[in-house]
Amino acid sequence: MNSSNAVLPPVLLLDRSLQEWLLEDIGRGDRTTQGLLDVGTQTRKAQWIVKEAGIIAGLPIAARVFQLLNQQVKFTPLVAEGQWCDHKPGSSPQDRTIIATIEGPLDALLMGERVALNLAMRLSGIATMTHQYAAAIADLPTQLADTRKTIPGLRLLEKYASQVGGAVNQRLGLDDAVLIKDNHIAAAGGIGKAITQIRDRIPYPLTIEVETETIPQVKEALEYKADIIMLDNMPVKMMRQAVQLIRGKKVSGAVAELGENPVKIEASGNITLDTIRAVAETGVDYVSTSAPITRSTWLDLSMKIFNE
Amino acid sequence: MNSSNAVLPPVLLLDRSLQEWLLEDIGRGDRTTQGLLDVGTQTRKAQWIVKEAGIIAGLPIAARVFQLLNQQVKFTPLVAEGQWCDHKPGSSPQDRTIIATIEGPLDALLMGERVALNLAMRLSGIATMTHQYAAAIADLPTQLADTRKTIPGLRLLEKYASQVGGAVNQRLGLDDAVLIKDNHIAAAGGIGKAITQIRDRIPYPLTIEVETETIPQVKEALEYKADIIMLDNMPVKMMRQAVQLIRGKKVSGAVAELGENPVKIEASGNITLDTIRAVAETGVDYVSTSAPITRSTWLDLSMKIFNE
Amino acid sequence: MNSSNAVLPPVLLLDRSLQEWLLEDIGRGDRTTQGLLDVGTQTRKAQWIVKEAGIIAGLPIAARVFQLLNQQVKFTPLVAEGQWCDHKPGSSPQDRTIIATIEGPLDALLMGERVALNLAMRLSGIATMTHQYAAAIADLPTQLADTRKTIPGLRLLEKYASQVGGAVNQRLGLDDAVLIKDNHIAAAGGIGKAITQIRDRIPYPLTIEVETETIPQVKEALEYKADIIMLDNMPVKMMRQAVQLIRGKKVSGAVAELGENPVKIEASGNITLDTIRAVAETGVDYVSTSAPITRSTWLDLSMKIFNE
Amino acid sequence: MNSSNAVLPPVLLLDRSLQEWLLEDIGRGDRTTQGLLDVGTQTRKAQWIVKEAGIIAGLPIAARVFQLLNQQVKFTPLVAEGQWCDHKPGSSPQDRTIIATIEGPLDALLMGERVALNLAMRLSGIATMTHQYAAAIADLPTQLADTRKTIPGLRLLEKYASQVGGAVNQRLGLDDAVLIKDNHIAAAGGIGKAITQIRDRIPYPLTIEVETETIPQVKEALEYKADIIMLDNMPVKMMRQAVQLIRGKKVSGAVAELGENPVKIEASGNITLDTIRAVAETGVDYVSTSAPITRSTWLDLSMKIFNE
Amino acid sequence: MNSSNAVLPPVLLLDRSLQEWLLEDIGRGDRTTQGLLDVGTQTRKAQWIVKEAGIIAGLPIAARVFQLLNQQVKFTPLVAEGQWCDHKPGSSPQDRTIIATIEGPLDALLMGERVALNLAMRLSGIATMTHQYAAAIADLPTQLADTRKTIPGLRLLEKYASQVGGAVNQRLGLDDAVLIKDNHIAAAGGIGKAITQIRDRIPYPLTIEVETETIPQVKEALEYKADIIMLDNMPVKMMRQAVQLIRGKKVSGAVAELGENPVKIEASGNITLDTIRAVAETGVDYVSTSAPITRSTWLDLSMKIFNE
Amino acid sequence: MNSSNAVLPPVLLLDRSLQEWLLEDIGRGDRTTQGLLDVGTQTRKAQWIVKEAGIIAGLPIAARVFQLLNQQVKFTPLVAEGQWCDHKPGSSPQDRTIIATIEGPLDALLMGERVALNLAMRLSGIATMTHQYAAAIADLPTQLADTRKTIPGLRLLEKYASQVGGAVNQRLGLDDAVLIKDNHIAAAGGIGKAITQIRDRIPYPLTIEVETETIPQVKEALEYKADIIMLDNMPVKMMRQAVQLIRGKKVSGAVAELGENPVKIEASGNITLDTIRAVAETGVDYVSTSAPITRSTWLDLSMKIFNE
Repeated sequence: MNSSNAVLPPVLLLDRSLQEWLLEDIGRGDRTTQGLLDVGTQTRKAQWIVKEAGIIAGLPIAARVFQLLNQQVKFTPLVAEGQWCDHKPGSSPQDRTIIATIEGPLDALLMGERVALNLAMRLSGIATMTHQYAAAIADLPTQLADTRKTIPGLRLLEKYASQVGGAVNQRLGLDDAVLIKDNHIAAAGGIGKAITQIRDRIPYPLTIEVETETIPQVKEALEYKADIIMLDNMPVKMMRQAVQLIRGKKVSGAVAELGENPVKIEASGNITLDTIRAVAETGVDYVSTSAPITRSTWLDLSMKIFNE
Repeated sequence: MNSSNAVLPPVLLLDRSLQEWLLEDIGRGDRTTQGLLDVGTQTRKAQWIVKEAGIIAGLPIAARVFQLLNQQVKFTPLVAEGQWCDHKPGSSPQDRTIIATIEGPLDALLMGERVALNLAMRLSGIATMTHQYAAAIADLPTQLADTRKTIPGLRLLEKYASQVGGAVNQRLGLDDAVLIKDNHIAAAGGIGKAITQIRDRIPYPLTIEVETETIPQVKEALEYKADIIMLDNMPVKMMRQAVQLIRGKKVSGAVAELGENPVKIEASGNITLDTIRAVAETGVDYVSTSAPITRSTWLDLSMKIFNE
Repeated sequence: MNSSNAVLPPVLLLDRSLQEWLLEDIGRGDRTTQGLLDVGTQTRKAQWIVKEAGIIAGLPIAARVFQLLNQQVKFTPLVAEGQWCDHKPGSSPQDRTIIATIEGPLDALLMGERVALNLAMRLSGIATMTHQYAAAIADLPTQLADTRKTIPGLRLLEKYASQVGGAVNQRLGLDDAVLIKDNHIAAAGGIGKAITQIRDRIPYPLTIEVETETIPQVKEALEYKADIIMLDNMPVKMMRQAVQLIRGKKVSGAVAELGENPVKIEASGNITLDTIRAVAETGVDYVSTSAPITRSTWLDLSMKIFNE
Repeated sequence: MNSSNAVLPPVLLLDRSLQEWLLEDIGRGDRTTQGLLDVGTQTRKAQWIVKEAGIIAGLPIAARVFQLLNQQVKFTPLVAEGQWCDHKPGSSPQDRTIIATIEGPLDALLMGERVALNLAMRLSGIATMTHQYAAAIADLPTQLADTRKTIPGLRLLEKYASQVGGAVNQRLGLDDAVLIKDNHIAAAGGIGKAITQIRDRIPYPLTIEVETETIPQVKEALEYKADIIMLDNMPVKMMRQAVQLIRGKKVSGAVAELGENPVKIEASGNITLDTIRAVAETGVDYVSTSAPITRSTWLDLSMKIFNE
Repeated sequence: MNSSNAVLPPVLLLDRSLQEWLLEDIGRGDRTTQGLLDVGTQTRKAQWIVKEAGIIAGLPIAARVFQLLNQQVKFTPLVAEGQWCDHKPGSSPQDRTIIATIEGPLDALLMGERVALNLAMRLSGIATMTHQYAAAIADLPTQLADTRKTIPGLRLLEKYASQVGGAVNQRLGLDDAVLIKDNHIAAAGGIGKAITQIRDRIPYPLTIEVETETIPQVKEALEYKADIIMLDNMPVKMMRQAVQLIRGKKVSGAVAELGENPVKIEASGNITLDTIRAVAETGVDYVSTSAPITRSTWLDLSMKIFNE
Repeated sequence: MNSSNAVLPPVLLLDRSLQEWLLEDIGRGDRTTQGLLDVGTQTRKAQWIVKEAGIIAGLPIAARVFQLLNQQVKFTPLVAEGQWCDHKPGSSPQDRTIIATIEGPLDALLMGERVALNLAMRLSGIATMTHQYAAAIADLPTQLADTRKTIPGLRLLEKYASQVGGAVNQRLGLDDAVLIKDNHIAAAGGIGKAITQIRDRIPYPLTIEVETETIPQVKEALEYKADIIMLDNMPVKMMRQAVQLIRGKKVSGAVAELGENPVKIEASGNITLDTIRAVAETGVDYVSTSAPITRSTWLDLSMKIFNE
């Protein structure tokens, strides 16, 4: 995936979150900034600078943060979303990569700085670690995918950062795809019963994915025509066996015509940078991991306002 | 600080966020869970288990998540907020620490699981890393403090986790204390002018903190009676000099009566586990760092639902 | 589909709408009801009665309307969602079918009556007409589906009524499945380009449906592996040809093993009670029509409060 | 009433609804449209076309839908609100009536299309059927009125469409006028007591209407000075008698001076196109019916986007 | 009007305001109360005491404030809404009138105290001054009325207090009655044109009131059948003339039968305690004044919590 | 404090309130204004005029009210916030002080008038009475302060008006400073325990104020290093003693160096225009009183629209 193609949330939705987040920080008023005289009538230029090497994500969102405070702020990204920016530790400030320039009323710059940076730092951190995982399997057909382990309230933005870093998104919520897990299977009394009950009651374009932990479960999922089969926490060897079982089913006879088997396979569970390649080489379509979102740290960025 | 004394957000405020976050995940409906027959009439028991050693934070919040879905869910924490839980990697499931038991309608357990866990994992990760920093200076009078670098929308909860881990909170927003930074100083034309302008316009119980980078700035902040002086990114040696300057000012004469100088000192900038102790030993009141929030990873927790 | 299995919206979401709707009607206060003395302390029994034959839908929602006004109201449905209720025009009131009994504070009954009835009448009207269409093809494997032509704000409830009446839901919004229409195809420069661009940027569990109007378009959609192919406004003869083309593609060789072709086929456009059977007999999986939602009228229901 | 004079909801209120409705459809994002590359940078022209003869209503609202997505969209109505548009079934597309032209960014056109059309189709359907009823009594002084049977959430817009079609609005909610029904009368212990209690507690400019089913009730309502008397479900003969009773009361003596009796009379209950004229001819001021809102179907409109 | 019959806002609406107001005060948390240990587990009794003589209003609202913080709080009013409470200045605390007792968790008592008292003090202040005005004309048929000069956000509550104090409410907003003022008249080109245009476009149960400043304007309002005529800022003598004109019109002939003229008359403008009686004696139906809301001060109440 | 420096609420926050307040008044639509034909296409000029002498506050807020209705409205204040405007009772309209001119669409002027005026009249009333209190001690170093007795929903605006009138703000809510009152002291078991518990759990920049009623309490507050000591309801003589005790503590020895004692002193309780000067002369830093907010009346302002 070309990261610059990542899809931003709809503006109507994004604005609601950004306004809430600005108010969370500003509260009843920025006592420091609003306490200064004439700070609203002074215009300033500023720069955003990287203080740590990584992938940049979130600049269009940062731009919108400032816009919501004051439409006169001009936020100009100097790098594309998903671009890698180097940073030499110990370098002098003037040698650092500038990723955006900003110009506008000083009070808007000061009141929006923290929210905008917090977002961009968090998203860039996610994109950077996602990129590491994606790079490890970049030459294979397998794609990296994310999960629903995201910070509450930031689902869309963190999934966006995941895209920017090179992953494809798994489902965005509980409503845009079905994922039948062990507890659902137990509640229904088996994979087949679960699929049958659910298929009957969901919008028909929705796909059904089943989480499997054993080969017999894979077979049952296949039999009941799951659209996607998740191989959860399987040893690589069992995973390879499962892939062959799934792909093999189709191979007999019609392979030339059908191209590839439409049943997708997702590997999941304890994926690390050490293990991801071996897992991908089993031939699964997707390797999903929450690590780039739950294990990444913020990419260090800072804002420099130039005083006239 | 005794971590079990950390202050939760007001319920009226917390509930609004939790409801938004549940809806972010559930969207138009949990297709998998709601697609099963009779899932709302089945009751289940479940456990929360640690899969990684650390400090637990967020169980009362997780309890509330389930409550908002269905008041019949009983979520019973088995460990106190702030308690350290061990985990032996590779241990069998039955040997793992159980931190909570849950009982209630199966659909509520399944629909709330992800939001509740995401919060508790994030908050426990913060508390755990905060604890590491706090432990490094536990025998010194200096206290660990946090910053405004928090995930947008989670300010109150992340600051709560910071408290649970052993830190004291810096201001919670732009409105409950003044922090005069370099750009404010430049806009006003000096530390003195900035303090004077702001003091005149803020609610009088609010404190004024000034960020200083040099000894002359420290002197100016003292002269204009800043309530708190931040020593930002100073070498330890300069920091020690600043502390003496600030404390010394008071020493002359009235020390016996006044006890300690009411001007508080905060050290800030590039604090790491390697440097925090040396910084604290300069005698500052607070060492603030964003690391436990921006550099921590989620503590791995999981939920096991028991099928009857 | 067994209509009693239709899936209600999540309570958190439903409550928000119901509260808005109650306030829309009540405004600053029910001048008539609140103008009476002691009306809040009087308890009454009431009945809901059908005044027109049809399928009942929406009783659990009506129950919730009254609950939100006063938790003491007991609303007891006497018929299952999806049940057909007869009505003899001109029958005396005591011969009419009672579909629910209600008991509670009189002011809550009076203030909730209109909103609750408006919803149930609208939803029952939809379910009734849906049932007519579904009945016309009940003995065929083809399923009836709905569309996104729903009253703004009522999407989830109208789709629920559609399920109650015997249809399966098409996607619920623009985000839970892809439907590539003529303008998307033109914007991308062809079906293949559109599928390729979109496949690269959507969550991978999402299905891609393509609207086709000609046989060559069907072929292109097949070639680029659309998950669902919509035959839009095709003459029945062309539709039959398209079905054979799609099904036939798979038949060659692997048919015994694969069972049925996983590419789903949806027929759409100008479906009426007169034409639906012929269309279904072409072998498509789904026939979708907006008629039960855009062409149905409200089922006449009324509420009788018994004065002591 | 000249339909072009119908009163739109206040913009502040309308925008809130439209934003909710857009988000209901768009959800987490329009996967199809946003999945296309560069779709936000392409500009398109489009037309709205009638596919069924009727009265047009809702174009200013549709215009606002697109505005809220992107201020650059120009939506130009070509017909006035309330204008009748013919449609020849089976006519070729180029012969159809164009009711609006649109120009703007393609993604905004695609993302707003369904919400805008759903509203306009529903409102035009209401206006069209209202017009039929209004036309049946157009030469009489009696006016057509609507009721509170409206789709929850659309009260203001459906009442607007009702105005566009030629009706006058009954009260808009429970708070802008009093309507005493049988249950209120029973709760108070009689019409007189109900009027007395309510009159004492409502804002004094509010009118009191009483629902009557018998001549004695009419007399009691007159005696206690109801401002409006509803003749509910009365046979035409009894209705004529009631009108004479009400009008006659005034006739004696002062008629020349007073002009007409200020007590208004509304006929209600089982009004159809077959019966409305006879009812109106009894001399009532208003005939109210929910039929144009509960019994109308959507007017078929469609949007044609021109690909460059 | 018996003040105990004043109508409270609908609970759904009231709760929204009360929650906003609690959050306005509590913000991110009550640092003092939540900073104490175990304050949530201590239960306390408390009393509300009057420190100034006056009419009590707002106790049911205060009760709800505490309820929203914690359902366990019991707030028991000891006086009826509208009751006059004496207060002897300089009396010892134990001699003061207790108007309510409260019992519940200490933190809820402390966190709700200010919002609850602020509301009750403001509303009681309004009720007390309203009572003064109402008492001045209590033996006359003329009723005291309020205006739309109310604190933004408190319209319903301030009008409630006005009722409690003995006034009747004028319209509650711009939508529940028409009031044609000088600018409307000028915009339309005369009273007649304004009435005609508006009558044609409003819900028909709405009344039309016209503001008049001269006798010719009164005549025009009468001619065009205004429902209510406001005599604005007229000298008492002209007012008497206007009343005779309006009443007299009807007197000729039909007076015995019609009882009183249904055209209501409202006097308005510069009404004070000194002038109200003379104005009322002109025979107008209503004297409206904003004074009890814009000129009243808060009634001094306080809360005493008993420490065990 | 120079009143023109008062700090307005953040726009994001202000706009939410103003929109709610406009909708409170407009409801479902301004029947009078919207009922006129072409009222939206007519432009008018208008003036705001004082009808009572006083301090003007709230013009920027009034300007925003009109802006939110229609961006084309130009509202031009002619006097600065905080300026005193004279008014000669009985003066002819043309001699009155014009404080603002407005120009814009007539419907926006008419629909915004009441909300804008209500706010400005209330705020100007507060500023005017605040000014009286502030003037009484203008030559002393003591500053006038406000309290949390404000109209719910208007906290920020009323505190703004208080600033405009010449006061400094006490804390804005329960979260931006600690104020330990008698019930907190009792719950904790003493001033010392309360301070210790709270200090441990609040953000460290927050100040702790303690309410004291006796000299021993003052001593305990001093001992436990309260940041601010409130002398509540003390006789002036005891107050003077308390001030000396607090100041004196510091005087011994270090006075030359330390300048003034950093412990601030606030006098509170039964402050009137008669007593404020004597209280201030005791040497306290602040005298706080709720009177300018709870005892002020609205300043009479009116809007004159010029008809062309």
